[in-house]
Amino acid sequence: MTLKMDIADLHGFLAETFPQVGTDFIVDALTPAAITVHMPVADRHMRPGGTISGPAMFALADVTAYLIILANIGPRALAVTTNCSIDFMRKPAAGQMLICEGRLLKLGRALAVVDALIYSAGQAAPVARASLTYSLPK
Amino acid sequence: MTLKMDIADLHGFLAETFPQVGTDFIVDALTPAAITVHMPVADRHMRPGGTISGPAMFALADVTAYLIILANIGPRALAVTTNCSIDFMRKPAAGQMLICEGRLLKLGRALAVVDALIYSAGQAAPVARASLTYSLPK
Amino acid sequence: MTLKMDIADLHGFLAETFPQVGTDFIVDALTPAAITVHMPVADRHMRPGGTISGPAMFALADVTAYLIILANIGPRALAVTTNCSIDFMRKPAAGQMLICEGRLLKLGRALAVVDALIYSAGQAAPVARASLTYSLPK
Amino acid sequence: MTLKMDIADLHGFLAETFPQVGTDFIVDALTPAAITVHMPVADRHMRPGGTISGPAMFALADVTAYLIILANIGPRALAVTTNCSIDFMRKPAAGQMLICEGRLLKLGRALAVVDALIYSAGQAAPVARASLTYSLPK
Repeated sequence: MTLKMDIADLHGFLAETFPQVGTDFIVDALTPAAITVHMPVADRHMRPGGTISGPAMFALADVTAYLIILANIGPRALAVTTNCSIDFMRKPAAGQMLICEGRLLKLGRALAVVDALIYSAGQAAPVARASLTYSLPK
Repeated sequence: MTLKMDIADLHGFLAETFPQVGTDFIVDALTPAAITVHMPVADRHMRPGGTISGPAMFALADVTAYLIILANIGPRALAVTTNCSIDFMRKPAAGQMLICEGRLLKLGRALAVVDALIYSAGQAAPVARASLTYSLPK
Repeated sequence: MTLKMDIADLHGFLAETFPQVGTDFIVDALTPAAITVHMPVADRHMRPGGTISGPAMFALADVTAYLIILANIGPRALAVTTNCSIDFMRKPAAGQMLICEGRLLKLGRALAVVDALIYSAGQAAPVARASLTYSLPK
Repeated sequence: MTLKMDIADLHGFLAETFPQVGTDFIVDALTPAAITVHMPVADRHMRPGGTISGPAMFALADVTAYLIILANIGPRALAVTTNCSIDFMRKPAAGQMLICEGRLLKLGRALAVVDALIYSAGQAAPVARASLTYSLPK
């Protein structure tokens, strides 16, 4: 399997297609089956007690899944999330970047499945896990 | 079962505890077992093609669950989401407010479970469904 | 919307297509949008402490979703479950039939989404909730 | 971290506590963080078209999670599944044993989280993935 988009392609696609959030996410590593995405934590992601909001972690998992799918099928903005299951397991460390490790478990004609572990930089145990299903445009 | 917080209490709690997002959400109806929360859609929630971002819908479901739990147990900011499963089923209508109908299915000593249907104002079929588990502080 | 299969059709289809388990499930009520399925509890469903096994409750939710989809689209055995999220909330009452209330939330060309609440006969609060996605054959 | 139960302990516990199903499952490998469980496929697990039933795969994922938790905390039958999310991704090969690879992602005081990939013997791509939360007795 060869990739249809490399890391620079993905960054360009994000910046162009999602101008509001595209620069929040940095692809750090990419193979056909696995991706690593970094999210520097901004003030708007924070919640009382120094924790990071659930929607911010959901967004990171969702973008991670989207990017590894696009890397394999090419820039089709219309791939859409149909399901996400996410477990929040530990409190992220204050002020630390989040790191998401995604794996492409299935890439079918109609559906793709990705799972992801989210880490807080400098912490060994994952803070969240997620699995996502995308519906792929014809 | 009587409520420990009413709609005004919930609005006050959100504004104080979550200054960044608290005013995005308006509780429209509340009983011990059910809640309706409105979310006016802002530019930052929009995505290409006139759709509303998945994280924005996740945030609405999450807040809805949090508020019906707090209404029943009182203002404990430390209740935390441990799991969410969400299905995105239809594209929300452009420019329309989202309406979330939450039901409290379980309120135990340690865990609470809420399910939610999200509607786009003016559309009969739900755009998303979610179920959420919260871990409750002692 | 009119139904393509009625309760008798569903019972006939189950008995013929799933001879091993088809008679475990009894459709009690059916409309295009909602279904009620009963499962008498057998010894093989029981677990230590008088509880009912998780897989037995999963099977009930899965069959319930399958049947309301088939009632709407006709007898296509090849509809397959692609995702299930299930929450086990309370211990079922010993020796009591399970009752599953399913709702068809989406019936698209490629995917259908159903949610379900499972009750233990004689108990007001649900023992489990589930949501299921089926992939529909062309 | 040292294990409180080894493979022989787990087999003994299953056979004693779950006489109806305990011998369906064979622990093949075990460390504090990971477990491999085999399930030979019996006629009662089969469905039309030569596929394996969803509830059978759910049962395998659920037992896998249970066993790695027990291996870490000791034989407490009362640990209960509170949530499972499962994706069925491919059709298992006819007549082949299922192999489940479980990872213990969190072992807290009240909750444990495990994820699992299920393979059909002789096939490289997983047939299903699951994540499970268990509530732990005090």
